[in-house]
Amino acid sequence: MHTFDAAMELAPLGDGVWLGQTSPAYGNMVGPFGGVTAAQALGGVLRHPQRLGEPVALTVNFAAALSDGAFTVHARPARTNRSTQHWVVEIRQDEQTAVTATVFTALRRDTWSAGEHGLPAVPPPGDVAARVIRKGVEWINRYEMRFVEGGFPAAWDGTDHGLSRTRLWMRDNPPRPLDFASLAALSDVFFPRIWRRRATMTPIGTVSMTVYFHADEALLRSTGDGWLLGQAQAQQFHRGYFDQTAQLWNEAGVLLATTHQVVYYKD
Amino acid sequence: MHTFDAAMELAPLGDGVWLGQTSPAYGNMVGPFGGVTAAQALGGVLRHPQRLGEPVALTVNFAAALSDGAFTVHARPARTNRSTQHWVVEIRQDEQTAVTATVFTALRRDTWSAGEHGLPAVPPPGDVAARVIRKGVEWINRYEMRFVEGGFPAAWDGTDHGLSRTRLWMRDNPPRPLDFASLAALSDVFFPRIWRRRATMTPIGTVSMTVYFHADEALLRSTGDGWLLGQAQAQQFHRGYFDQTAQLWNEAGVLLATTHQVVYYKD
Repeated sequence: MHTFDAAMELAPLGDGVWLGQTSPAYGNMVGPFGGVTAAQALGGVLRHPQRLGEPVALTVNFAAALSDGAFTVHARPARTNRSTQHWVVEIRQDEQTAVTATVFTALRRDTWSAGEHGLPAVPPPGDVAARVIRKGVEWINRYEMRFVEGGFPAAWDGTDHGLSRTRLWMRDNPPRPLDFASLAALSDVFFPRIWRRRATMTPIGTVSMTVYFHADEALLRSTGDGWLLGQAQAQQFHRGYFDQTAQLWNEAGVLLATTHQVVYYKD
Repeated sequence: MHTFDAAMELAPLGDGVWLGQTSPAYGNMVGPFGGVTAAQALGGVLRHPQRLGEPVALTVNFAAALSDGAFTVHARPARTNRSTQHWVVEIRQDEQTAVTATVFTALRRDTWSAGEHGLPAVPPPGDVAARVIRKGVEWINRYEMRFVEGGFPAAWDGTDHGLSRTRLWMRDNPPRPLDFASLAALSDVFFPRIWRRRATMTPIGTVSMTVYFHADEALLRSTGDGWLLGQAQAQQFHRGYFDQTAQLWNEAGVLLATTHQVVYYKD
């Protein structure tokens, strides 16, 4: 079994409640990698017997760091329409809320479709050197990352680079066919924009993340275990919080997800 | 009293529940303008006696069209930390959930701050013609709009313009000092990106909207009742849903909010 699938396991406790476990393989500095937590919150909806359609929007709020160990996912369909559904989700641990989330699912229909944010001109993944990991948290080893632009600072010398943009080819390590859960997790792979911008190892923590899924099941299937190009950039850093706006394309250049987050930073 | 303040009135029913009324002055094609609904959801948190700090992130999910008349806002602090707080909010009508929302509030601290998405080069609001409203829904009259780029299509002739970007100067009509509620509402003023892109009057409906507030109280105060430049663009239209990413700057060029939404479209 792939490490990601093991991390996604949720045991049904009934009435929309699931029992999960944090995965040491996705350990972060404090608690688990937020992308996997987001995927676990989504998992409570994906597994729910009343689910209607595929996820289109996911917002996850990280209210507290999860401790290593067991947690429960609580997924409630707040409103079910003819072809759409709105979910309210919480992850709880020690009788406290650690994560709040909302999910929107829908039965998609064929319509006029078009992109408006194409794959940037970048070399193919085979032409880009793999990132050499010298040290780091455990979850980083669960992803292959090939930085095209804006990798980890070569020197943590406090230079203001004036730009926080990063572009990288990325995928699960080892490769794994893409699904909604892993696409949600990949949306959080970007290292903090303030590190890129300022070349300073500032304490940070994501407080809220939104993922819009433009991919449907068919597009996930055709993407398979191929590389995704991720692009992320901050728009504003202001008094302790900055935002990040990001895009994820497959190798064929189709935009699979757009994602945003707001992140706490200490100085 | 300003029409917006009247629309924001919520009568306390106790235990984090408020009674509100839809405002005919902000009427939309079906139900009220979503921006005002988002502001009313935020209002349940802003008025809550347990609120800690200022709003930093707001996600509102439009689960059903509100009917004209009374509704209740239910705001619950799901987690309160030392300087941050996570809220779960619902708007209910006829014993059903019409809106779900999450709000993140925080006590901000002084830190290094910087922008990374400057005001585009545009003429000042005084040099741009006011939009002449020929027909339309009532809420449009509550905002002054001066389109710099990408206004309503001159001809609804189905031309694919290949680009959905709009830039406009906007503010409450009559002008009103900016606050968090009105900034949330202004984040939803942009007309649907698919109309701009395709010059076709397609049925649409926003299903989820996120606002990141980069403005704090002091910045709102210094912005006052001045103009905001709004910029909005879609990134992907796919099988019934498109996204919108947008920025709102004040006249001094400071980025006050970044906002995203995902919108249903019919064909």
